[in-house]
Amino acid sequence: MAGNSFGDLFRIMTYGESHGKAMGTVIDGCPAGVQISAVEIQQALDRRRPGQSKITTPRNEADQVEILSGVFEGVTLGTPISLLIANKDQNSKDYGHLKDTYRPSHADFTYQEKYGIRDYRGGGRASARETAGRVAAGVVAHKLLLSDMSIQVNAYVSAIAGISLGQSYKELDLSLIDDNIVRCPDQGTAEQMITLIEKAKADGDSLGGIITCVVSGCKVGLGEPVFDKLEAQLAKAMLSIPAVKGFEVGSGFSGTLLKGSEHNDPFIKAGGQMRTKTNHSGGIQGGISNGMDIYFRVAFKPTATIMQKQRSVNQQGEQITLEAKGRHDPCVLPRAVPIVEAMTNLVLADLYLKNKLSQI
Amino acid sequence: MAGNSFGDLFRIMTYGESHGKAMGTVIDGCPAGVQISAVEIQQALDRRRPGQSKITTPRNEADQVEILSGVFEGVTLGTPISLLIANKDQNSKDYGHLKDTYRPSHADFTYQEKYGIRDYRGGGRASARETAGRVAAGVVAHKLLLSDMSIQVNAYVSAIAGISLGQSYKELDLSLIDDNIVRCPDQGTAEQMITLIEKAKADGDSLGGIITCVVSGCKVGLGEPVFDKLEAQLAKAMLSIPAVKGFEVGSGFSGTLLKGSEHNDPFIKAGGQMRTKTNHSGGIQGGISNGMDIYFRVAFKPTATIMQKQRSVNQQGEQITLEAKGRHDPCVLPRAVPIVEAMTNLVLADLYLKNKLSQI
Amino acid sequence: MAGNSFGDLFRIMTYGESHGKAMGTVIDGCPAGVQISAVEIQQALDRRRPGQSKITTPRNEADQVEILSGVFEGVTLGTPISLLIANKDQNSKDYGHLKDTYRPSHADFTYQEKYGIRDYRGGGRASARETAGRVAAGVVAHKLLLSDMSIQVNAYVSAIAGISLGQSYKELDLSLIDDNIVRCPDQGTAEQMITLIEKAKADGDSLGGIITCVVSGCKVGLGEPVFDKLEAQLAKAMLSIPAVKGFEVGSGFSGTLLKGSEHNDPFIKAGGQMRTKTNHSGGIQGGISNGMDIYFRVAFKPTATIMQKQRSVNQQGEQITLEAKGRHDPCVLPRAVPIVEAMTNLVLADLYLKNKLSQI
Amino acid sequence: MAGNSFGDLFRIMTYGESHGKAMGTVIDGCPAGVQISAVEIQQALDRRRPGQSKITTPRNEADQVEILSGVFEGVTLGTPISLLIANKDQNSKDYGHLKDTYRPSHADFTYQEKYGIRDYRGGGRASARETAGRVAAGVVAHKLLLSDMSIQVNAYVSAIAGISLGQSYKELDLSLIDDNIVRCPDQGTAEQMITLIEKAKADGDSLGGIITCVVSGCKVGLGEPVFDKLEAQLAKAMLSIPAVKGFEVGSGFSGTLLKGSEHNDPFIKAGGQMRTKTNHSGGIQGGISNGMDIYFRVAFKPTATIMQKQRSVNQQGEQITLEAKGRHDPCVLPRAVPIVEAMTNLVLADLYLKNKLSQI
Repeated sequence: MAGNSFGDLFRIMTYGESHGKAMGTVIDGCPAGVQISAVEIQQALDRRRPGQSKITTPRNEADQVEILSGVFEGVTLGTPISLLIANKDQNSKDYGHLKDTYRPSHADFTYQEKYGIRDYRGGGRASARETAGRVAAGVVAHKLLLSDMSIQVNAYVSAIAGISLGQSYKELDLSLIDDNIVRCPDQGTAEQMITLIEKAKADGDSLGGIITCVVSGCKVGLGEPVFDKLEAQLAKAMLSIPAVKGFEVGSGFSGTLLKGSEHNDPFIKAGGQMRTKTNHSGGIQGGISNGMDIYFRVAFKPTATIMQKQRSVNQQGEQITLEAKGRHDPCVLPRAVPIVEAMTNLVLADLYLKNKLSQI
Repeated sequence: MAGNSFGDLFRIMTYGESHGKAMGTVIDGCPAGVQISAVEIQQALDRRRPGQSKITTPRNEADQVEILSGVFEGVTLGTPISLLIANKDQNSKDYGHLKDTYRPSHADFTYQEKYGIRDYRGGGRASARETAGRVAAGVVAHKLLLSDMSIQVNAYVSAIAGISLGQSYKELDLSLIDDNIVRCPDQGTAEQMITLIEKAKADGDSLGGIITCVVSGCKVGLGEPVFDKLEAQLAKAMLSIPAVKGFEVGSGFSGTLLKGSEHNDPFIKAGGQMRTKTNHSGGIQGGISNGMDIYFRVAFKPTATIMQKQRSVNQQGEQITLEAKGRHDPCVLPRAVPIVEAMTNLVLADLYLKNKLSQI
Repeated sequence: MAGNSFGDLFRIMTYGESHGKAMGTVIDGCPAGVQISAVEIQQALDRRRPGQSKITTPRNEADQVEILSGVFEGVTLGTPISLLIANKDQNSKDYGHLKDTYRPSHADFTYQEKYGIRDYRGGGRASARETAGRVAAGVVAHKLLLSDMSIQVNAYVSAIAGISLGQSYKELDLSLIDDNIVRCPDQGTAEQMITLIEKAKADGDSLGGIITCVVSGCKVGLGEPVFDKLEAQLAKAMLSIPAVKGFEVGSGFSGTLLKGSEHNDPFIKAGGQMRTKTNHSGGIQGGISNGMDIYFRVAFKPTATIMQKQRSVNQQGEQITLEAKGRHDPCVLPRAVPIVEAMTNLVLADLYLKNKLSQI
Repeated sequence: MAGNSFGDLFRIMTYGESHGKAMGTVIDGCPAGVQISAVEIQQALDRRRPGQSKITTPRNEADQVEILSGVFEGVTLGTPISLLIANKDQNSKDYGHLKDTYRPSHADFTYQEKYGIRDYRGGGRASARETAGRVAAGVVAHKLLLSDMSIQVNAYVSAIAGISLGQSYKELDLSLIDDNIVRCPDQGTAEQMITLIEKAKADGDSLGGIITCVVSGCKVGLGEPVFDKLEAQLAKAMLSIPAVKGFEVGSGFSGTLLKGSEHNDPFIKAGGQMRTKTNHSGGIQGGISNGMDIYFRVAFKPTATIMQKQRSVNQQGEQITLEAKGRHDPCVLPRAVPIVEAMTNLVLADLYLKNKLSQI
C-alpha cells in the first residue's frame, strides 16, 4: 500500500535506507520446491554492485547477500524468503551538508514535504541502492519460471545519449552483453559509449540512454485482462526504477506511424505451433503473452547527481549553491541492466502464478 | 488479483462483456461527502460513446449510466458506488462468424488459450467497450480531487499517424480541445487529422497516434516511494488502455539525449512557493508530485479491426481469410481522450488518499 | 480496503443499501470452466429470503437474482461474475421517523459518526439485507469446490436461547435440516424452538442462539500459515455476519478444560488414509485442513430490532422514546443458516485457490 | 496472500523458521512522525520471551531486537520498519528424531502435505516462536494509536483449565497483571493457577485456558462495514495465534441466552458524551467502535507438546511411539498475554488509518 511491495502472488517487499544498517527484501508467495542458493543471488548482485568498473561509482559496497529464512537444504519451503544485504560503507559524515539542501531533480524536497522528515544521508529511502533487493529477488523469480519453461530474459544498453545501436535485437548476439563494461552486445558501439561516459565523468557531468529487454521462450497465457495486462505491469515495473522516464513495447511510439493493415500480425501455424508472421505486438495481445518474443525499451534520464556547481534552494527557502561531494555514477545504465531484468522476472513470476488459476 | 480492479484505496472494479447484459463499475473506497450526480457522469460518457461523429464507429449505444448504490441525496455515503450501463445494441448475430476465428492482433487466441473458453461476441471481455466503466468512475475520482485542490486534467490528441502538433502544451489553449471532433486543440492540425482519418476509413484501414495529457494544480506529495511512484502508476494505467504501446513522462525518450547539467531542474522560490525553473521532471521527483505541471504522452497503435481482407488461422489451426463485418473505429484516439483523463484521475485519487496517511 | 470485499483470489465485493435500487455482488477470480446457472443461485437465495415462514419478517422481497456478466452458455468465463438483486419493496416512507434516531444496538450512531452521513432507511448499508449477495456468491464458491472434491457444507440451528440440541453433529441426520422452518435437524427440538420464537414474536421481543456448521470431504492443505489460518479466516467470516458475537472451532471453549494428553489427536493410518483417532482439532492443524471434518459453532445475539418501546437518544443528543414500526425477524437464525454456509464456502474457495500455489 | 502478512494499511509481514538464522518483521505503512525506540520494543519482547519464569519453557533465547530501517533519530520515517531478532539457541541436533514424525495436534503432517517439504526443526515456520515478531510490531502499532488517543490495551489470564476468575474486568485492578508470573490480576486466583501449571509440568502434561482483553479509550469510528468489522478483524487476529480455538466479544456465547429487550444497550448522553447504559455490544456496533470499552475472551487449547509417550504415525505411514525431548511450555497463556495485546494493537492501528479516509 505504501509503495514498498511489488507483485500480488509472487510478492516482494523491500526495506532499507541507503546509509542505514541494511537493505533487505522479503519474498512472500514463492512456491515450495524451487532450488536456490546464495551463490546464484550473489552473481546477479555483482552485476549491479558499485565499483565494478571505471565507469561506475567507486562507492565500495560488497553487497553480500544472506538468506535468513524460507530456504531449507537448498530448496524453498513455501515460507517467506528473507534476503539481507548489510550496508558496509555508510560513511554518513559525507552527507551532513545535504541536511537542509534540496538537490535539483532529486527526491529531497518531495520526501520532506510528504513525510515532514527524511533520512538525508545518500538519498535515504529514495536512493537507487534500494534496487539491490530487487535484483536479489529477481533471481528467485527467474528460478521459479525456469521450473516450468525454457525462458530467457536479456537486457542490454541500446543507447547512451546520442550513440545508439543500429541493429534490432534479432541481429545481435545477446550472449555478448557482459563482454564489455557498458553491457552493449555490439563491441564497436560499446567502445563509443564507454568513451562518451568517460568524457562525461571527466566533465563532472552525467548521461542517460536506453535499455532494451527481450524475453524469449515465455509460455502463452501470462497477463491478466483489463488493468493488469502484461504490458501494463511491465510499464509499472520499469517506471518504478529510479531515473526511468519512458517505456515502449513492441512497435511502441514508432508504431503510431503505421496503418492497421501494416501493423496487424497475421497468425500462422508453423511447426505445429501457433505463431504470428510479424511481431509488432511485442509478444502480447489483449494483455496476455502469445508465445512470441516480448521486447520493450526503457528510457533513462541522465543521473541527477553531477559534480558541477548548481543553483538550488534549501529547506528554509534560501537560494544556495550546491557542490556535490563524494561518489556518483556518471551514467546508471550499465548497472541498470540487471535491474531491468530483475523487474521483468518479477512481473513474469507473478503473472505465471496468476495464470495457474485461470481454469479449473 | 484477476486484473479487473484498479487502485488500492480508491479502488474500482469493472465487469461486463461487450455483448453481455451490461457493463458495470463498482467504486470502493470513495470517502463520504463527495457531491456527485448521474448527469455529470453522463457528460463524460458522452465524450467516449460510439457514434458521436463521422470518424467514430456507428455502433449505436446510448451508454446511459445508472447509480445503483453509494450515493444518497446527491452525496457519497462512503459505501460502494455501483454504476451500471446496460448494453442495448447487442446484435450478437453479427459475430457468429468469429466463433472459431483468431483475428490478427486481437485477443481471441490468447483468451482462448488462457481460459479454454471465450465470449467471442465483439471481443467479449477484451472489448474496449469495457472502458466505459472507467470513464464513469473517473468522474467520481475527479470530484474527490476537486474537494481538496484546484486541479485540472486535460488530454488531447497530439498526433495522428504522421500528422503531429508542433507546439508544446504550454503554447496551446486547452479549452479548445472539444471544439473539433478529433479533440486536437489546434484547429488547423485538427482538420488535417480528420481528413487523414476519413481517408483511412474510406480505405477500410485504420490509424494510430499520440495523446498528450497535462495535469495542473496538483498538490505536492502524491505518489508513493519505490514501486508505486506516481509515474509508475500512470504508466500502468495508460498501458492498461487497449491499443496503447508506449508512455513517456516529462522529458521522456528525448530526455535521454540531454546531459545531467542540462536536464536537472533547479529549485527556485517564486511567489512564496517552491518551484523548479525548468520542468524536465514532468512534475514528479522521487516518484512524488512536486507541484509543477505533470505531463505525459501515450502512444496508440492503429486499430486492429480493419475492413480489408486479412489472412489468419482459425481455432482448428486452419488457414483462413477474414473479412470484417459490422462497425469499427478507423482511429480510436478521439474517443480515447476521456479514457486517458479518467485513468489519470483514478491514479491521482488513489494516491491522494494514500498521501493522507503519510504523517501522523 | 473499505470493508466491502472478502477473499483474495476468490474475491467478492458486495454493494447496495437496504432501500436503494439494488443489492449486488461481483465475484472476481473464479476460474473459467465452472458450470453455474441462475436457478442454482436462486435456490440458495430462497432459503435466506424474507417472508419464507411465520417466524421470519413479512417484508416482501422476491430476491430474484440476475447474472449480468462472467457466465457464457452456462459456464464461467474467468471474468468477473456480476450478480444483481433489485430491491422491490423499498417502502422508504416507513423510515422517515428514523432519520435522526439512534436505535439501541444498531449501527445508526457509529455510521453517522464515522461518515458524517448515513442512509437511514432500513439500516442502509448496515442492513442484514446485504447478506443476500453473500449467499448468491457462496453458491458459485461451492460449485468451484465441487469441481475438485466431494465436499459437503452443512449448517444448522443448534440452540435458540435456552433450548439447545443435546446431540453432537455426528449423531444427527443433516439431510433433515430443511425439514422444518427453524432449520434444526432434530424435529422435537425444532418444535420447541419454533414455539419459543413465536412467543417472543408475540411479545414484540427477539431471541438469539447458536448455529453449528460441519464441513465433510475437504481436501488436506487448505489454509495458509501464520495469519491466514483456516480457522482465522472462518472466524473473520463468521464475525462479519450481522449479530454474531462468538466463534469456536473443534473443542473450542470447552477444550480449555482438557489436558494436553486428553486433547491431542493421535494420527492413525486407516484404509490407506492418514486420519486422527479423535478430532478435537476440528479438522485443522497448524491452520491447515487435515482431511478430517471441520466443525465450528457461531453465537448470534438476539435481534436488535424489537417491537417494544425503548429509551434512546437522537442525533441532537436528546432523550427520546423509540417505538419500532414495520417488519422484523424475531430471531435471525433460521435465515442465517444459508449465510453461515455461504461464508464457509467463500473461505474454502479462496483457500482452495491459494493451495494450488503451494508447490511448483 | 500466502498468509505471512497482517493488516492492509498498517501492514506487517513476518518471516523466519524457529531454528533458522532469524525471525523478523517488516512494518509497512506506519506514518512518519511516531517516536519509537528499540528499548520500548525490547520491553514487550521480554514479556513474551522463553525462560522468563518457572512455568515457561527453559529454552534460552534473549530475543534481542534490532531496528534495521525506517526509524531515523528516534522517529519513524514513513518507510518500512524492519525488526530483526536473531536466533541464538538453534540447537538443531535436538530435532533429528522429528524429521519423519507427525506429532499429534502439531502442523507436521499438514505442512508436509501442503508443501512437499518442511523445516522439521522445532516446528519450523509453524512454531509459536513466530509470534515474537508480532509482539515487536505491536509496540509500534500502540505508539501510533497513542499519538491520537488515550488508549489502553490490557490482556490477562482469566482461566487456566478449571480455575477461573469470578470477577468481570470492571472489578479487577488491571495494573496488577504483571505482578505475578501467570499474569492474572487477582493474586489468590493466580496462585492457584500457578500451582496447577506446576502440577501439569511435573506430570509432563499441559493445560489450556482463557485470556480476556480490554480496550479502553478507543475513539468512535474504528472498524469498516460488512466484511472488515472490528469484531471480525479481532476474531481473525486471535484465531491466528497458535493454539487458539475460540473467540467471543461483548456478551458472546452467553448473550445468546438473553432476549433482545435485555440485550439492547440504550443510548444515553452523559457528561456531554454519547454512551450506552449497558455494554453487551462490547464497544462495537455495526462493526464500528462506539467509544465504550471493547472486551473479548480468547480460548487456548492445552499445548500440543507434552512430555509423555504418545502413539502416532511417521511420514511413511508406520505406527510409532513418540517421546518428546527438549523443552516446552506446560501452558502457553502467561506468554500469550503480550501476543493478544499485540494483535489487538495491530488490528486497531490498521482500522485507525482506514478511518482517516472515511470522510473528505
